[in-house]
Order: sequence, then C-alpha cells, then structure tokens
Amino acid sequence: MEKIETLRWLGDADGRLALIDQTLLPVAFEEIELTTVEQVWEAIKKLRVRGAPAIGIAAAYGVCVGLQTAPAEEEAFFVRFREVVDYLAGSRPTAVNLFWALDRMTAAAEKQRGAPLDAIRAALLQEAQQIHEEDRAMCHAIGRYGADLLTDGQGVLTHCNAGGLATAEYGTALSVFFTAQDLGKQLSIYVDETRPLLQGARLTAWELTRRGIDATLICDSMAAQVMREGKVQAVITGADRIAANGDSANKIGTYSIAVLAQAHGIPFYIAAPTTTFDLAIESGAEIPIEQRASEEITHGFGRQTAPDGVKVYNPAFDVTPAEYIRGIITERGVIQPVTREGIAQLFAST
Amino acid sequence: MEKIETLRWLGDADGRLALIDQTLLPVAFEEIELTTVEQVWEAIKKLRVRGAPAIGIAAAYGVCVGLQTAPAEEEAFFVRFREVVDYLAGSRPTAVNLFWALDRMTAAAEKQRGAPLDAIRAALLQEAQQIHEEDRAMCHAIGRYGADLLTDGQGVLTHCNAGGLATAEYGTALSVFFTAQDLGKQLSIYVDETRPLLQGARLTAWELTRRGIDATLICDSMAAQVMREGKVQAVITGADRIAANGDSANKIGTYSIAVLAQAHGIPFYIAAPTTTFDLAIESGAEIPIEQRASEEITHGFGRQTAPDGVKVYNPAFDVTPAEYIRGIITERGVIQPVTREGIAQLFAST
Repeated sequence: MEKIETLRWLGDADGRLALIDQTLLPVAFEEIELTTVEQVWEAIKKLRVRGAPAIGIAAAYGVCVGLQTAPAEEEAFFVRFREVVDYLAGSRPTAVNLFWALDRMTAAAEKQRGAPLDAIRAALLQEAQQIHEEDRAMCHAIGRYGADLLTDGQGVLTHCNAGGLATAEYGTALSVFFTAQDLGKQLSIYVDETRPLLQGARLTAWELTRRGIDATLICDSMAAQVMREGKVQAVITGADRIAANGDSANKIGTYSIAVLAQAHGIPFYIAAPTTTFDLAIESGAEIPIEQRASEEITHGFGRQTAPDGVKVYNPAFDVTPAEYIRGIITERGVIQPVTREGIAQLFAST
Repeated sequence: MEKIETLRWLGDADGRLALIDQTLLPVAFEEIELTTVEQVWEAIKKLRVRGAPAIGIAAAYGVCVGLQTAPAEEEAFFVRFREVVDYLAGSRPTAVNLFWALDRMTAAAEKQRGAPLDAIRAALLQEAQQIHEEDRAMCHAIGRYGADLLTDGQGVLTHCNAGGLATAEYGTALSVFFTAQDLGKQLSIYVDETRPLLQGARLTAWELTRRGIDATLICDSMAAQVMREGKVQAVITGADRIAANGDSANKIGTYSIAVLAQAHGIPFYIAAPTTTFDLAIESGAEIPIEQRASEEITHGFGRQTAPDGVKVYNPAFDVTPAEYIRGIITERGVIQPVTREGIAQLFAST
C-alpha cells in the first residue's frame, strides 16, 4: 500500500512547501514546490490543495514561506506577518481550518516577540510541523472510531474527497474506510463523482483504487437509486465547517444525499476533526455560502457543454441540518445523537 | 421565436429523414440527412435523436427508409419489413414509444396487403407523417393542461430534456413552460445539467434561452439546495415509460429529485403523452433498467476524469414510484392523484 504524502516541507525555515497538485489527478501524479506566499495562496484558491485540514496545513507553511522575505526589523517583521496572515485568510473564506491554523501561527509568533527573528522563524516552522503531525494522528483516531460503526461486507456511499489528499495522510471519511481495511473489514464504497469539480471521480476513486479498496464510481444523481437498490448501508462524508448545533457545511450535494439517506432509512455520518467545529456560530444559517464561477459548470471539462450566456447557479457548499446527521465522527469520539449539548459535552471533556 | 424542427421528412416515399444532430448541441446546430435504416438505428442508439416521442417518429420514418431497398415481390417485401422493424426495435430497448410507433407501422402495412408495393410505401409514409403530426398536437395539449398548474412568477425545476427536441415541436415538460410563456406567465426555470450526458445543459438550457425564457443551469447535486432556498415551487420532468400503477421510468436522477421534492413539500409532476404508458406492465418493478458504458462517466467529455480501471455503475434510467408523483400531465388531462384507477379511467374515457 503506497503512502500518499499530500504535503511535505522540504528543508529548514528557509525551505519550501511541496504538495501534490490535485487538479492534475487522476491522470497525472505531480508534486509542485511553492516558494512564495502568492503561490501558496494560488494553490489554495485553485484547489491544487483542498480539504479543510490540508488547507490549514498549507496555510501554516504558507506563513513560513511568506516570512522568508520579511524585513529584518521586528516591528516591520510583525507588520509583514499580519499582511501574510490576512492575505492567506482570503484564499478560501469558508474553510474554518484556514483561520484556525493562522490563529495558531499568530499565537506562536506573538509568544516569541522580542526573540531574534531567526528564532521566531524556527518557532513558526515548528508550529506548522506540529499542526501537520497532529493532523496525521487525528485522522487515525477518526478512522478507528468510524470503523467501529461499520461491519464487514457493507456498502458505504461517500461524496467529494475527504481522503488522505484532503489531510496529512489518511483523511477523515476515507480514513474510516482505510482503517476498516487495516482491521480486515471488506467494504464496497460508492463514490459520487461530485460535480462540478469531480473531486470524487478524480481524487476519492483514485485513492481508494490505489489502496485496493472496492470502489464504484457513480454520478451524483445516481445516489438515490443506489440507496433504493440496497447497495449501501451507510453514508459518510467530511465537513468543511460545523456549527455549535451540529449543522454542517460541506461540498455542494452533501445536503442532497443526507435528505435521500433519511428517506431511505440509511444513517448519514460526518467524519471531521474537532477543528472543523466553529462554536462561535450558533447554526448553519450563519454560514456564508461561497458562489463559484459559472464556467465550472458550463465549461467544466475543457469543452463547452452549455449554451453561451445561460445563467448559472453554482454554490460551492450546502449546509446539512443536524437532524439529518446520525453521528459526527471526531478524533475524540462519535457525537451521537448530534445535539448542541452533545457537542458542548465533547468540547468540555478536554 | 424561432421554430425548432426536430425531425423533417424530405421528399416523397423515396425521400430521406433529416434531423438535428443533438449530440452536437449546444455548440453546433447541424441537421443530418439519413438515407439508410442503419443510419436511423445509429442515430437513435447514439442519442442523435432522443426523447420518447421523437424516437417513435424517427423509427416510423426509419421503416420508410428501410423499405426503399426492399424486394419488389410482396412476400419478400414483408419479410424485409419484419427485419427492418425488428432491427429498429433493438436501438433503444426501454423506449416504449419505439415499439408503439413500430406497431402502428406494422398495422398500416398489414392493412395494405395485396395492394401494389408503391401504394404500401405511400401508406407507410402517410402513417409516419400522421404519427409526427399527432405528436405536435399532443405536445400543445400537454402544454395547455400543464400551464394551468403554474402561476406567474413561479420557479420550476426540470431534469434532462423533455423539450421540443425530444418531440415533434413543443415537447412535454418544456411545452408547459413554452405554453405558459405564450399565455403571458413569467417563470424561472432551474435546469439540472443531467449527468452523465448533460441533456439538461446541452439541450434544455439551449431551448429555453433560445426562446427567451429565464433559465438557470445547476448541477444535479444542487437541486436539493435550490428547493431548500425556496427557489422552486414545482418540479416537472418527462417520462420514458409509465406503468399501469403510475410508476414512471425516466432519465437517471429523476427519482432523486422526486424524493427531494417530497421532502421539501414541493409537487413533482410528470408531463408525458398517453403513448408513454405501458398498461401491460403492472408496476415499475417490471421495467428493465438499461446499463450504459462506463466511459460516459469516466471520459464523458473527451477527457479522462477518473482513474484507470475504476468500477462504474451507470444506469440510464430510474423508476419513480407513483406515490412521489403529484400528477401526470397528459394530452387528455391531468391524472391527479396518480393511482391505478385514475390511469385506467383516463384510458377508458376515449
């Protein structure tokens, strides 16, 4: 089983960020090296790196890259630090892990005020690497809790890519499948292709087949039929942002399969690290939905597939209300049922 | 408002079938002329002409084309007739209109036994043209009944292409929108792109924008979100085959939006001519689901979007159970509620 390294830091504080360019998958497997903060911003914006945890890790390393050209005087260094953080924060406004990682980097920097700038740079790299390693451990914990919910021989539907490529290594939703495989459970995974950007077809199908897991690709519109035919006994997706009441923002189409799962009596789970929770927001109504370019739908495959001038509605995300979610699988355990109290309790237990 | 002629017969019994090559839309608008039955079979098989009524019309003209090279002796002529009919019947095995049209052509031919072969050929062309004209009138009647169900300012979701291109002229589901427009009702139509072959993006969006109707293209996975945001107050699709109890086979993804519509309290209608009913089948359980090639999903637009060797599940159709359908809009009126008795009554009333 090949190890998939989504991101790698090469060198010391003067080093560079290498990452798999996920826009080229599944046809080409190529690693790109980023040496400027503009390149990191572009990689996040253009989905070369995507998935909430991986975005956080990339942003943390992006801060390190951005400070390599910072002024040598402390006050100016910190002005530059703030500019870099604000700039990176604008790359994907709905990804809470982005802000979480940037906040950690900010705290690490502030703690070093007064230290030599080289020491600050070293501390920041250490913080970014710490974020990276914590994510790896988190994915494995999610996988173990999630695998307990599944039994040998089951079919499971997933949407988008909450896989290793979205994180440091094992992923969130896919970590459940990888861990189940490690434990000897044979699963049949149905993969929504996930229009418009086809992360399911390009990334999830690639990760699963590469690891030898039984995977079947479907169009998003076929999920209901797959459920009706009894081919799946559970649905597991990742999440981009979870409110205090459990409402969960994730790739457009997630809400659709959550409603369909409920109509078919199939449990719908979300697998996400606790960093995906944003307890400052009360419910999904407060989560802004990013609108993306029309061309993703009208020219999505390098070819025009809709008439010139047609109007397009292209929300990047939707919000699945908590009542559709059977459980949220985190690295600290499964929140089930999904209630404001259950969530508060998990966070209070630290 | 430009008239869209899906199919045209050019000339007399020795003429040829011209049709819009729908696989080239929306980028190119091209009419092809078919002079052999093999070309007609290929056009139906490859979806150059699609939609249940248009397939029936094409098959009827296909019989005329196929008999141009028939032997001059009556017995041999009828042997050839049977071969042509059987051959065309194999082009799209789930399209009941195909069999219905071929049965009408068979009856017309049998009625002429003993007549000069030229007279039989002329009678067959007349029958094909009659099928064509009846369809035109049928579409307008469906449009009038359906438009009564909608009010000015409403949003309506549709899936696939049940438009003029699927029929002689106005279509079935889209005829409702065109007729509403003729009556001065302003509607906002949301169009599912309809993976894998994108009939919604390529054909429906093209027909609606060409006629100046407000149309917004979405991915299939966005339908639930559009419903949740209150953007649509009704869903109308076509159907490929309707059982005696009202269960309806239509393009894959139709069942999904029917379930979603019910979950959101939005009425789901089917618009289809009575020829789409197959009263010989009791329920949807008896409707065979055609499986189509993997490449439609993995290489759908001339570009590889999934890893080599991944398994694919690609059903062409799904079956929406009658209990999800608020009403079936036919050229003889609206069947509502959709029950075995209501359907039988409509057919008994002729």
